[in-house]
Amino acid sequence: MTTSVRIVGTGLIGTSLGIALTRAGYAVVLADPSPTAVALARDLGAGSVADQADPAPDVVVVAAPPDVAGAVVADELTAWPDAVVTDVASVKVAVLEDVRRRGADLTRYAGSHPMAGRERSGAVAARGDLFDGRAWVVVPNDQSSDAAIAAVKDIAIAAGGTVSTMSPAEHDAAVAVVSHVPQLASSLVAGRLRDLTDPAVALSGQGIRDVTRVAASDPQLWTQILAGNAAAVREVLAHVHTELTEVIGALDVLADGDGVGAREVLARIVAQGNAGHARIPGKHGAAPTAYSVVVVLVPDQPGELARLLHDVGDAGVNLEDLHLEHGMGQPFGLAEISVLPAVAERLGEELSTRGWRLHG
Amino acid sequence: MTTSVRIVGTGLIGTSLGIALTRAGYAVVLADPSPTAVALARDLGAGSVADQADPAPDVVVVAAPPDVAGAVVADELTAWPDAVVTDVASVKVAVLEDVRRRGADLTRYAGSHPMAGRERSGAVAARGDLFDGRAWVVVPNDQSSDAAIAAVKDIAIAAGGTVSTMSPAEHDAAVAVVSHVPQLASSLVAGRLRDLTDPAVALSGQGIRDVTRVAASDPQLWTQILAGNAAAVREVLAHVHTELTEVIGALDVLADGDGVGAREVLARIVAQGNAGHARIPGKHGAAPTAYSVVVVLVPDQPGELARLLHDVGDAGVNLEDLHLEHGMGQPFGLAEISVLPAVAERLGEELSTRGWRLHG
Repeated sequence: MTTSVRIVGTGLIGTSLGIALTRAGYAVVLADPSPTAVALARDLGAGSVADQADPAPDVVVVAAPPDVAGAVVADELTAWPDAVVTDVASVKVAVLEDVRRRGADLTRYAGSHPMAGRERSGAVAARGDLFDGRAWVVVPNDQSSDAAIAAVKDIAIAAGGTVSTMSPAEHDAAVAVVSHVPQLASSLVAGRLRDLTDPAVALSGQGIRDVTRVAASDPQLWTQILAGNAAAVREVLAHVHTELTEVIGALDVLADGDGVGAREVLARIVAQGNAGHARIPGKHGAAPTAYSVVVVLVPDQPGELARLLHDVGDAGVNLEDLHLEHGMGQPFGLAEISVLPAVAERLGEELSTRGWRLHG
Repeated sequence: MTTSVRIVGTGLIGTSLGIALTRAGYAVVLADPSPTAVALARDLGAGSVADQADPAPDVVVVAAPPDVAGAVVADELTAWPDAVVTDVASVKVAVLEDVRRRGADLTRYAGSHPMAGRERSGAVAARGDLFDGRAWVVVPNDQSSDAAIAAVKDIAIAAGGTVSTMSPAEHDAAVAVVSHVPQLASSLVAGRLRDLTDPAVALSGQGIRDVTRVAASDPQLWTQILAGNAAAVREVLAHVHTELTEVIGALDVLADGDGVGAREVLARIVAQGNAGHARIPGKHGAAPTAYSVVVVLVPDQPGELARLLHDVGDAGVNLEDLHLEHGMGQPFGLAEISVLPAVAERLGEELSTRGWRLHG
């Protein structure tokens, strides 16, 4: 009854998956080119080290870096002629084409992409709950058998993921827009900060902090991801490039005088951003929700934020999102509390009554 | 002894400033083309409505929209031949050049830019603490008298701002990088979401949410800001455009095969982003600080986050930043608690002891 799973590659994702599946009752064996890495994964509770005496696995999960995933998937399909094989690379067309080019049996292969853990790395950071509530996209190819797809979904669900299904091209086009292009935009904007004086950088507010947070990501990993999804990222960037050229043209005209139509370009780009931003779903996966924001001054001392959120909870209001903004050199910060619009006014009153200072 | 201040324009910034200065003991009179707006500001405690019987003001603050600020500054300099005049527009070269072109007395003018309140609007949103702890840049011109500069700084400090001084060109170049270009990048990235299917948008994670948060900003206001700083924004965007062209070239090569040097371009852009991001100061205005992040699973129920932050406070640890990430359709979220690296390990242990589940 217990499904046996072989995990190839014991980095953050592979090790975390091993821990999760072991806890869920699967029999997990682990393989990695590095004996140290695989021993560490075993010690973390991710499964046992693969051995020649092991029975053939029911499912193989390839958790190798994106640029070698295709080769490893093909090898595993050949080595285990009855097993279903999946991989967890964050790009899917390139991996599939690599497997196809190697002539492996595509009926037993279905890719997947658990959208978790990318900003941290290394097996030591592994956790069995890494996938809890994260999107896990199962990505069948044109030949995947129903049984293979079902087996991969089963693994994703057992690991705690929220499963959806897409074709390889759909997946790569989606992550180009929601992940890869935002990363590049963030990197390009952050890169401009290098040229500023210290007093100029000191004007950085919450806006640029948010825009550039992911600019701290690992260049080597992102080079692999972007290279692996080059065609889809290029297509999205071509639109961005066209619009950016248009913006620069409008600014040229405005810098030199006052051109008819130049302001329309700027207003349209910002309005298109409004429309796109409004499509991002609310936290419960329901239709996009515009939350109301209640802003509160919070003294910068241990416990004060807790006291505020305790009072929010006491008011019976569920917090949908929270942003902190710190003043430079000031003894307090601003807490922006997002709540459903229907309760915002009441929350403001309740907090005022309890002595909190509301803000802007 | 009481300084008399005349505020022209009673929107969010003008009204908030009136409230702050009135509280600080200044005698404030209010003017606005709209009798309704000025009456509302008066009722909110921002000062008295300007009257012909008023004595001449010591300082005039022009809080008009960026595209008319220069004209209003020039009018006020002429109307009050002994007063110091400032404005609060978020662009400074264009306003100064407008004032200069009108032949007004530049010795009594020094611009300013309180970096607050832009994402909300309207006098009804005014608060006397709007400027508390926010950067307030005082922007003298080449003719500003020492007395004029001192008077404007005095107003900024009285309103609660954290004051720095820059030339108009320095100011505009700085905000182009830290505010205007991030806004455009955010809008351009968010605009791409319009073309996606719902399942594709549903893959949006915390990265794109952060990058596109400011994409919800007002197109009309941003058109004025960008048009008013066209030359400086264009210069920064030209660099971004060049690098974006280079990235697209590299992706072209990678999509068609495997080109020498293409990966280097991608790695360099991401690494430059690392370097730029690292320059953003920590919250206390000290040298840039890399915080350690402790990630905790928080049940999605009123009071749970408060209980967590209460436990953080109990552990004697000061929270430097907090990000919430919500799983789609899951009964909990992830709280990413940023703390000084020296206390991260102890905090993790304390929270585990108290029954919290730490995460990846």
